[in-house]
Amino acid sequence: MSDPSRPTQPRTEAPPGLDTPGLVLLYGSTPNGWKVTYALQALKEAGLIPDYTVVEVYLETGEQFQPWFRKLIDNRAHKAPISVFESASILLYLSRTYDKRYLLHFEDDDLEQRMLDWIFWVQGGLGPMQGQANHFARYSGERVEYAVERYTTETKRLYAVLDEHLEDKEYIVGGKLSYADITAQPWVRCHFWCHIPLDPYPHLRAWHDRVENLPVIQRALKVPQQDLVTRVKQDPELERRIMEAMQARKEKAEREKEESAA
Amino acid sequence: MSDPSRPTQPRTEAPPGLDTPGLVLLYGSTPNGWKVTYALQALKEAGLIPDYTVVEVYLETGEQFQPWFRKLIDNRAHKAPISVFESASILLYLSRTYDKRYLLHFEDDDLEQRMLDWIFWVQGGLGPMQGQANHFARYSGERVEYAVERYTTETKRLYAVLDEHLEDKEYIVGGKLSYADITAQPWVRCHFWCHIPLDPYPHLRAWHDRVENLPVIQRALKVPQQDLVTRVKQDPELERRIMEAMQARKEKAEREKEESAA
Repeated sequence: MSDPSRPTQPRTEAPPGLDTPGLVLLYGSTPNGWKVTYALQALKEAGLIPDYTVVEVYLETGEQFQPWFRKLIDNRAHKAPISVFESASILLYLSRTYDKRYLLHFEDDDLEQRMLDWIFWVQGGLGPMQGQANHFARYSGERVEYAVERYTTETKRLYAVLDEHLEDKEYIVGGKLSYADITAQPWVRCHFWCHIPLDPYPHLRAWHDRVENLPVIQRALKVPQQDLVTRVKQDPELERRIMEAMQARKEKAEREKEESAA
Repeated sequence: MSDPSRPTQPRTEAPPGLDTPGLVLLYGSTPNGWKVTYALQALKEAGLIPDYTVVEVYLETGEQFQPWFRKLIDNRAHKAPISVFESASILLYLSRTYDKRYLLHFEDDDLEQRMLDWIFWVQGGLGPMQGQANHFARYSGERVEYAVERYTTETKRLYAVLDEHLEDKEYIVGGKLSYADITAQPWVRCHFWCHIPLDPYPHLRAWHDRVENLPVIQRALKVPQQDLVTRVKQDPELERRIMEAMQARKEKAEREKEESAA
């Protein structure tokens, strides 16, 4: 998913703002972006980080492959800056470095371990598999029936696993919002993008809505502007325009490839 | 990949041994199995855990979907047993619980974070993508050209990223074997299974061999019996027999599905 009203070329120079003191997130409106804004906003509102900077990047142009690209930069006060490049690793960085009062994780070792389990379950399973389902539902160009079936089935299986787990729970681990929910919910909110309804998963849907409707999450979803899922739901035309823009970008890339090969 | 000389049905009752005191690994000879035996063997040889128990499971029959299945169980001395279900989460469990002298990780926060970054890079990228490359190279039945190309290209891109990172390094992080290498190397040793040679990646190949040839890793690869990659390399006939056994299992499953639908 990507906004059609945006640049079509990656910037070869780093955008301004990457050296702002404190935490700087390079952000696209995708599940991997939201999981970090969820955490940053919650930590900020709890007073655990002073503030944070969000720099929008245009993932649809391939900016994440530019040499200047980082995902999270921490321009620390008395140490050299550190950058962290995987989204769930960023959550653990925030947890280890700033969340020492256990706002979004657990003092109890066993609960903490269960949270890690679910984080890896999302990162190694739900995320990549739903990502493939999205690809074959939306972006593959040619229709590859075998792959659509494979990844839709696997995503549904994973939804069913989480639905069953949530049958008697408000949150994935320990009765409160944690990095486990923050890792998983952004994927589930994109269910419609690969044409999987949530109706067969009532506990998953209730949990999705519960997380979505938390005031802090609602505020996170407006950073730096209203997130793309909300905008697609509010504007029936936007989905069509996104698909058209993606198609146009794809055709342009193919033309350029042919021209450079000629 | 799976051994042809093995059961074809999952066990509906838990195999014996799961309540052995201490750490019990439910193991198949796959990348996710090796990463845990690598760590357990290293921790054991350093005296950080007393010993560990390995119970072989038949993943090719779907035993991982049986209700009794766990991945790692820790039958702890003074607490209720805990089970951990994701392979990289198991590494962090071992790290947090037993590896307090930093044998396979780092006291320095920044190095530890870099290690986490690479663990997530493997779990969310290399593992799932090479897993898909394996599927379409070996198991899909029908040849799906688009998907073979997609996942082979992506796996090669990821190999190139790690190759470049390793250009001036013996190990992925901090100049010593860590959970980052332990997470990544088991995937790279299966490169031939999706028909990707390592020749274009000299630093990756040197690192792969360096890890593979560590005496502790060689010993880990013999737990509970010699691993399947080594056996395939030693016995040119085994690869053919694995593929035949998989094909037979697949046809049997399809027959049973048709019969139950009839």
